[in-house]
Amino acid sequence: MTTPRLSFSRRLRKSPFEARSHAGATAASVYNHVVLPTAYASLEEDYWHLREHVQIWDVACQVQVEVQGPDALRLMEYLTPRDLSQIEPGQCMYAPLVDENAGIVNDPIILCLAPDRFWLSISDSDVLLWVKGLAAGAGFNVRVFDPDVFPVSIQGPKSDALLSRLIARPTADIRRFRFIEAEVAGTHLVIARTGWSGQGGFEFYLGDPAKGVELWDTIVAAATDLNLRPGCPNLIDRIETGLLSHGNDMTLLNNPIEAGLDRFFKMGKKADYLGRDALEQIARTGPSQRLVRLTVPGSGITNPRDTYPMAIAGGEQTGYVTSICYSPRMDCHVGLGYVPADCCTVGTPITLLTPVGKAEGQIADEHWRTEPNAK
Amino acid sequence: MTTPRLSFSRRLRKSPFEARSHAGATAASVYNHVVLPTAYASLEEDYWHLREHVQIWDVACQVQVEVQGPDALRLMEYLTPRDLSQIEPGQCMYAPLVDENAGIVNDPIILCLAPDRFWLSISDSDVLLWVKGLAAGAGFNVRVFDPDVFPVSIQGPKSDALLSRLIARPTADIRRFRFIEAEVAGTHLVIARTGWSGQGGFEFYLGDPAKGVELWDTIVAAATDLNLRPGCPNLIDRIETGLLSHGNDMTLLNNPIEAGLDRFFKMGKKADYLGRDALEQIARTGPSQRLVRLTVPGSGITNPRDTYPMAIAGGEQTGYVTSICYSPRMDCHVGLGYVPADCCTVGTPITLLTPVGKAEGQIADEHWRTEPNAK
Repeated sequence: MTTPRLSFSRRLRKSPFEARSHAGATAASVYNHVVLPTAYASLEEDYWHLREHVQIWDVACQVQVEVQGPDALRLMEYLTPRDLSQIEPGQCMYAPLVDENAGIVNDPIILCLAPDRFWLSISDSDVLLWVKGLAAGAGFNVRVFDPDVFPVSIQGPKSDALLSRLIARPTADIRRFRFIEAEVAGTHLVIARTGWSGQGGFEFYLGDPAKGVELWDTIVAAATDLNLRPGCPNLIDRIETGLLSHGNDMTLLNNPIEAGLDRFFKMGKKADYLGRDALEQIARTGPSQRLVRLTVPGSGITNPRDTYPMAIAGGEQTGYVTSICYSPRMDCHVGLGYVPADCCTVGTPITLLTPVGKAEGQIADEHWRTEPNAK
Repeated sequence: MTTPRLSFSRRLRKSPFEARSHAGATAASVYNHVVLPTAYASLEEDYWHLREHVQIWDVACQVQVEVQGPDALRLMEYLTPRDLSQIEPGQCMYAPLVDENAGIVNDPIILCLAPDRFWLSISDSDVLLWVKGLAAGAGFNVRVFDPDVFPVSIQGPKSDALLSRLIARPTADIRRFRFIEAEVAGTHLVIARTGWSGQGGFEFYLGDPAKGVELWDTIVAAATDLNLRPGCPNLIDRIETGLLSHGNDMTLLNNPIEAGLDRFFKMGKKADYLGRDALEQIARTGPSQRLVRLTVPGSGITNPRDTYPMAIAGGEQTGYVTSICYSPRMDCHVGLGYVPADCCTVGTPITLLTPVGKAEGQIADEHWRTEPNAK
């Protein structure tokens, strides 16, 4: 069965960059109703290039939800267990949004534009409707809307070199998870040191979609000697880096504790938030399952269409893999999956059921080591 | 530039029917995070076949949002300007959902399963988050969740003949926009006389995804002499029928009056609903623009990626086309678009700006006639 081609219509929102980014893209997906290129050369070739050079990514699909008004901060706090009380203009914070059951609605980066003005730069679910619904239902005094702001990203070790040619300020002024406002190609941009890779880089938030192609071309022109290529979030890199994908590694049916996102916040923040009771209950009793890293020797296992069932320590099939791929650098598969919370010790053997047969592997630590208590 | 192929992962929810429906599909889109096949043979061939025979459609992407509990009806009423007070179990109602500005959030078919239990069978936006947000914010006493129910549809003039072979009851028992519960292939189904074509048919709501392939095969096996084919919502048929597509012909930025959806409800319903003030204001002053049907002689204009600008009666470009295609039956283009409310008389000349040049056409009535006051 051949994979169908993507059909376009107005329902798939137009990225300001697509006239450039779709050229050379061999595969694409739809993310937040926007087309996301997902492959250019090959997964491995794109991976090595990303680790060595710099890529330009059309991540317009990472759309914004703007929250503005007197109750903006209180509403933002209400959305997440992460404490936002100290957030300040120019700061980005990664924060899981949860529902009344502590289920993960989305895992945006929150940008504080002003004390009463925020963007949620979102993964793939209609956070606009979620936040609007909550605000309308509970009577928060805010405006919640889509500001038509679309990011383009540069990622890779040469990102600083590239950005330094585009803005007057030293790039070191932009700390990790911070942003500045600057002009590039005559266009006002928010530029953040963020991005969905482990190789470092920046995201440029463009507020004038008509300037997309000009901005893209300006970035490309500044990089002639940097071996820049168009790219996209890379499965190998993002799994190796431990970046979770909403919809793949966690859904509304998962909570932040089992997904390990509680490393981004402390329980017990002062401000009120939806799902507090449910989340505190899970924190008290412990989650029933936990997301872990896995290594599986060999090659040939492709990322699951849904999940792959997994047996833990030779027992029953009580776990499942959500994302996996072959890492050419480590010469084995790297994966993410859920295992029962009492079976998540590093080194525990696991057996994967894949379309190409059974595969044996182990639970790994955050450095992909499988020796228990490795230093 | 070639169109990229669609890449799959767990983030795109699995249709229970995809093992069958993706075979032979040459193009696909993503709708409610589910893959929707969008072409099999060709648009025109699929169209003629749909008008003459019967097709089986994988419309699992038309996912359900279930609302259940003591406040279920009150919340359902709160979502839409359409009066639901007389809805009864077994009934389907098409109803626009609106936000506080009367912007269209979605245009689902509402199925009343019990006086305190409803499904919203939705178009492409996360109504689950919208309704959950409103319910959590305003404290409605309901459970709002995704029941994992996926529709497969049979559409075309031979649909009754096909269904009569699958269920014991006479198909005439199922009136338009009504449903029954029945067993097919040993699986409990909700079967409604609904569907997104102008050729008649039924939608089968499957609650056990593991039975998808068996159900598909049972339907196909019952149709050996009916010239059944896999198909999908057909652009030509749906425009000719005047079926609006959320995301294409209306978005959150449109209200139901300008989109002409007010023909499905009367203003002034008794129950409280969000957006009432905004909608009543629009009803009083009249909308600034209106969605109209358009005919454009000739052929060769393809459906827009975004919209095509449109000049009205030789004037300025103040309108835009949202959907258009060539109708082989009428031998001209049929389209939908917005024009200023004071320029929407049938017969008004319009000029379209398309990638293949200017094209002259006219505003048509609901039977695609362009003679003013035609009988």
